[in-house]
Amino acid sequence: MQVSENAFLDGRLTITQPLNGYRAGVDPVFLAASVPARAGQSVLELGCGVGTASLCLGWRVPDLELSGVELQVPYADLAKANAQRNNQTLQVVSADLSALPDELKQRQFDHVIANPPYFDRTASTAARDSGREAALGENTPLAVWVDTASRRLVSKGYATFIHRAERLPDLLFAMSGRLGSVQVLPLQPRIGRDANLVLVRARKGGRADFRLHAPVLLHDGAHHESDRESYTAAIRDVLRHGKALPFPA
Amino acid sequence: MQVSENAFLDGRLTITQPLNGYRAGVDPVFLAASVPARAGQSVLELGCGVGTASLCLGWRVPDLELSGVELQVPYADLAKANAQRNNQTLQVVSADLSALPDELKQRQFDHVIANPPYFDRTASTAARDSGREAALGENTPLAVWVDTASRRLVSKGYATFIHRAERLPDLLFAMSGRLGSVQVLPLQPRIGRDANLVLVRARKGGRADFRLHAPVLLHDGAHHESDRESYTAAIRDVLRHGKALPFPA
Repeated sequence: MQVSENAFLDGRLTITQPLNGYRAGVDPVFLAASVPARAGQSVLELGCGVGTASLCLGWRVPDLELSGVELQVPYADLAKANAQRNNQTLQVVSADLSALPDELKQRQFDHVIANPPYFDRTASTAARDSGREAALGENTPLAVWVDTASRRLVSKGYATFIHRAERLPDLLFAMSGRLGSVQVLPLQPRIGRDANLVLVRARKGGRADFRLHAPVLLHDGAHHESDRESYTAAIRDVLRHGKALPFPA
Repeated sequence: MQVSENAFLDGRLTITQPLNGYRAGVDPVFLAASVPARAGQSVLELGCGVGTASLCLGWRVPDLELSGVELQVPYADLAKANAQRNNQTLQVVSADLSALPDELKQRQFDHVIANPPYFDRTASTAARDSGREAALGENTPLAVWVDTASRRLVSKGYATFIHRAERLPDLLFAMSGRLGSVQVLPLQPRIGRDANLVLVRARKGGRADFRLHAPVLLHDGAHHESDRESYTAAIRDVLRHGKALPFPA
């Protein structure tokens, strides 16, 4: 397997990942930045890949007890190596979300986080409007991700997901009846543009009303201007300096 | 029944409505402004109340064939009188959405619009996180509103709803499997604040991806400043001059 080494948080983290297949970009960094974890809490990442989100979160918040589950063994192995290389402790288990081993099923966590794989829209257009993720060719339906998150959370624990905005209805369906106090923080590339990503937070046993927050703007300016970096100052702080990207109070 | 006469669209419409009970504010005006109706098309308003949304739409778009259904007879009667007074033709039927009379069931419309009554949150807090509108004390579940809209639409016809942002998940659940190409246009009171209202558009037989648009800002400034009107210029154009509030292309 060919791998590359990539710097995250302006070089504060070095992540080794496969050259082909899923590669971590900014999404796991945004996910990590949005998690309301406090020192000493436990965090489980579903589908942790090579560990980018968990390790970004571990960099920002001290003394977390980090665990990750990843179906694909080569990614799980890289996650273990990445943790070691970055002087962090991340317990990585290679397993299917719908059949977690006892070492995880016997535990509950203060936080569960996930960046589920994005549906490749070129693969199927047949059922795009049905709201049924099972028809979309995903190996693990979103409902399984959310159900697993809910089961592994302590009461009042937080689930935080990042996903493409076009999957928001499916994610909300999946959360209905399993998690409450759902909040959506849209990530909007530029002024006036549709959100392309959404951060969705929910609580186990939460009873607050659904909230749709004002979007976070990723780039300054109304247009993409050549190759000059155009991230807003707040987003640069997140991506380069590992700052938090909190949900509004 | 005590009534009041209220000016809409800067006096271009005069609407008589009951002094007590549901009273039309800016919501039906926003709803009407967002409907992509063209001259000559047919429009059915579900729960039309005293007719405010339909008459605002009829003011903006010429030669529409406007129909409204309203459960409560006194409101339906006022809707008829309001149409006449404003020199518009609005066919008003007093009926329950789940049991439309044949004169409506035998027709299909280019547009169905609705501003469903808002759940009174003081009435029940028991099931706020369940996503089940039936438990929320509403007389007519949102699913019935959406199902009726879907049945009465022509193929590729548009449903346009306005509702409180906290009910967005319920509205999306209701649309799942019944309508496609769902788009959400949040209405955000001020910079950095949560959306309090959402305009939701969907098409019968639509197959496009879900879209979460950038919010429309209602007020200038970060804070409410005394009693000076603070609507943005675009929103003033909608409320005072009957301009369109189109969904982004």
